[in-house]
Amino acid sequence: MPNSPASIASPTRTTTLRPLDLIRKKRDGGEMSSEEIGFLVHAYTDDDIPDYQMAAWLMAVLIKGMTGPELSALTGAMLHSGEVLDLSDIPGPKVDKHSTGGVGDKTSLIIAPVVAAGGVTVPMISGRGLGHTGGTLDKLQSIPGFNINLSLSEFRHVLKSCGCGLIGQTAEIAPADKKLYALRDVTATVESPNLICASIMSKKLAEGIDGLVLDVKTGSGAFMKTEKDSVHLAELMVETGERMGKKMVALITDMDQPLGLKVGNALEVAECIEVMNGGGPADLREVSVELAAWMFYLAARTPSVDEGRTLADKLIRNRSALKKFREIVVNQGGDLRAIDDPKRLPQAQHRVTVLSPTSGFIETIQCEQVGIASLVLGGGREKKEDVIDPAVGLILHKKVGDAVHAGEELCTVLYNSDARLGTARNLLQQAYRIADQPPATRRPLIHRVISGKAARA
Amino acid sequence: MPNSPASIASPTRTTTLRPLDLIRKKRDGGEMSSEEIGFLVHAYTDDDIPDYQMAAWLMAVLIKGMTGPELSALTGAMLHSGEVLDLSDIPGPKVDKHSTGGVGDKTSLIIAPVVAAGGVTVPMISGRGLGHTGGTLDKLQSIPGFNINLSLSEFRHVLKSCGCGLIGQTAEIAPADKKLYALRDVTATVESPNLICASIMSKKLAEGIDGLVLDVKTGSGAFMKTEKDSVHLAELMVETGERMGKKMVALITDMDQPLGLKVGNALEVAECIEVMNGGGPADLREVSVELAAWMFYLAARTPSVDEGRTLADKLIRNRSALKKFREIVVNQGGDLRAIDDPKRLPQAQHRVTVLSPTSGFIETIQCEQVGIASLVLGGGREKKEDVIDPAVGLILHKKVGDAVHAGEELCTVLYNSDARLGTARNLLQQAYRIADQPPATRRPLIHRVISGKAARA
Repeated sequence: MPNSPASIASPTRTTTLRPLDLIRKKRDGGEMSSEEIGFLVHAYTDDDIPDYQMAAWLMAVLIKGMTGPELSALTGAMLHSGEVLDLSDIPGPKVDKHSTGGVGDKTSLIIAPVVAAGGVTVPMISGRGLGHTGGTLDKLQSIPGFNINLSLSEFRHVLKSCGCGLIGQTAEIAPADKKLYALRDVTATVESPNLICASIMSKKLAEGIDGLVLDVKTGSGAFMKTEKDSVHLAELMVETGERMGKKMVALITDMDQPLGLKVGNALEVAECIEVMNGGGPADLREVSVELAAWMFYLAARTPSVDEGRTLADKLIRNRSALKKFREIVVNQGGDLRAIDDPKRLPQAQHRVTVLSPTSGFIETIQCEQVGIASLVLGGGREKKEDVIDPAVGLILHKKVGDAVHAGEELCTVLYNSDARLGTARNLLQQAYRIADQPPATRRPLIHRVISGKAARA
Repeated sequence: MPNSPASIASPTRTTTLRPLDLIRKKRDGGEMSSEEIGFLVHAYTDDDIPDYQMAAWLMAVLIKGMTGPELSALTGAMLHSGEVLDLSDIPGPKVDKHSTGGVGDKTSLIIAPVVAAGGVTVPMISGRGLGHTGGTLDKLQSIPGFNINLSLSEFRHVLKSCGCGLIGQTAEIAPADKKLYALRDVTATVESPNLICASIMSKKLAEGIDGLVLDVKTGSGAFMKTEKDSVHLAELMVETGERMGKKMVALITDMDQPLGLKVGNALEVAECIEVMNGGGPADLREVSVELAAWMFYLAARTPSVDEGRTLADKLIRNRSALKKFREIVVNQGGDLRAIDDPKRLPQAQHRVTVLSPTSGFIETIQCEQVGIASLVLGGGREKKEDVIDPAVGLILHKKVGDAVHAGEELCTVLYNSDARLGTARNLLQQAYRIADQPPATRRPLIHRVISGKAARA
């Protein structure tokens, strides 16, 4: 009968940690020690454990889950697989924000300058677009000349000089996450709240921050479609961050329709500039102010979230945030003319409108479909090698609850390639559901706040 | 937030089977179709799916389990990854026996000649020792000259001429099992009843048999320590075999102490010859007769199991089984003189006895420890590359329930290397538990019969 000779309680067996024993422990629902988890992560990162053993362990983790201490150990091991910034020579608290990603989710470009303008250091290391969601780095790179590839010493320099830097993950940050993520991607072990939490937190905690505000999206355009799943992930991240000594709060925010009216890289930069000029869509403004308010509060810059809200609002209205954004753009080599005149941002050659087939009220917008439409136009990547077209995207003219007449414009598609238009237009035509009556209830923008101990104090 | 771009419901997605979707399906507890399982097994065998994806799927199978139809599909896909013998040109039914493995478990060497002597064809493809358990092939190879590596056409030839052949797995039989087993061995996915069942049954069904008697061992020397686990595995195998059109029965037999008195390759061959000469230990005789009786019954050679028992007993007493065994040995190139005079089998150079430290009754014998003692002496393999010493092993003088005096011999150790003696002796000294009273209850030799439909009819 098949069985592994390695599993014999042989008298010659030593107490060395062995991958097979550790896989078996998690497989059988046991709790692994911090030493055991550290061994697995470091040995895997050093290529001492093969992919197939790690894949078996990841699947066991996905199905059997992890305890809080296990999750902290995993996050810690991934964090310490690379460099952890020490920003203690920069005075004052450092806070950051992380979003789980959405469609039209562009708040980072507003929040970072707002909070830095308020005197709090924001060392923001961001990611690329993933699947149907956009990424901060892709948006920033639609600004001509903007350099997201600062070295860690250059990053430290801009943080000192202007209180904010916006860069991409460097090779020094959490290499274990990079390797594990690539394996999860091809072994159906992405969708584990524990593994998602460890991946996000190991990168964010490498920033040398004191506090972190999490924007956990929920709804049809989020990775977590239900509020229950979003809350669960938020709780894991808040608890893990706190266990590692950080001030934490998570806002569960709505992603059942795109945030703001513009989706696409350059389009979203332009919309952020509108907000920092005192305009822009109300929902984008409100979510941005709310997140910035919590960052001020975690940084103890304001004694309450309310006062944080007032401060954020003021820094937008008096153009301090815009001034700070211009400073960031200059520091990172971007062309200021594109900020001062957003028509200088990349522009698509063609546009076409999607019209409403009927009269009534917008009941729902299939948000993931809208994200995929933008991706298909060239605004995102279907394969890792794909090159993004910064100019393409779409502008929504109607959002949930709005009245619409037959033949009226639902949205405008901005595109460069006829070949890509058809699929995108189809997706958008199917994304809107129109009803006779306005929806009875409106989803709130902020569903819930999951506060850590420090945030509750 | 991390997620796989591959999981997007992209409009360009095709209906081709994709490994990632199949891993996800099992991970989430779904039931896979026969087509999906066949795709995975064949693509993996053809090296079109990497080890890490199969490892993730195997772990999901181990934890989430399989339905009966899934298990049959897996067994069928593994079976048809290689050659399936067609023995329809040999008249009469063909049956075989498979044991899940134990210590001193040597019944194949008795049963195969008994059943063949009764006129039923026994195409027996056996395995090596695994862990602490012995293997039929290793035992046969202690007979000088015995060739277990017949080609399939030579195998067919001996089956026709004498009704029985005893060979090892060839490269043509179930190559998918070979590859999957090697992966399971290093990913802690061996201990899955479904995967164990598919592995055993895919190899056994390749023999072109009509019926199969399973000897599922239970107790301290078996891989399945509890009766519950043994019964579960037995039921899976009986159901799977029946679903594939075979007559099936499983006997749950005791392995809480070694079967017979001798453990070690040449020693066990000698003990089988004792039985076929009308002697030998009663437990070994009884289990062998019982299994042979069921084989006669499944082959419809006798109208009842009782009559099968009588026939098996007669074929041993009138030496027909011994005569058939000699025929098998001649057919496969073995030295008959070693059968007629077992002292010509390999003999160890040294012997030492283990004495009882106290007086009383044998309460238990830690059976796995006894198996490891034999392995450590050289009778088994600690690593795949190890070469077996056919001569070494041990002879038990006391079994459970026997009275013993302080200083009386518990067992004799037969060895060739002083360096290997110490560990083995220690294990044997600790293996016996001696009590003041004889055990209140005795474990039966045959715990239970799990009959398939045909066996119940």
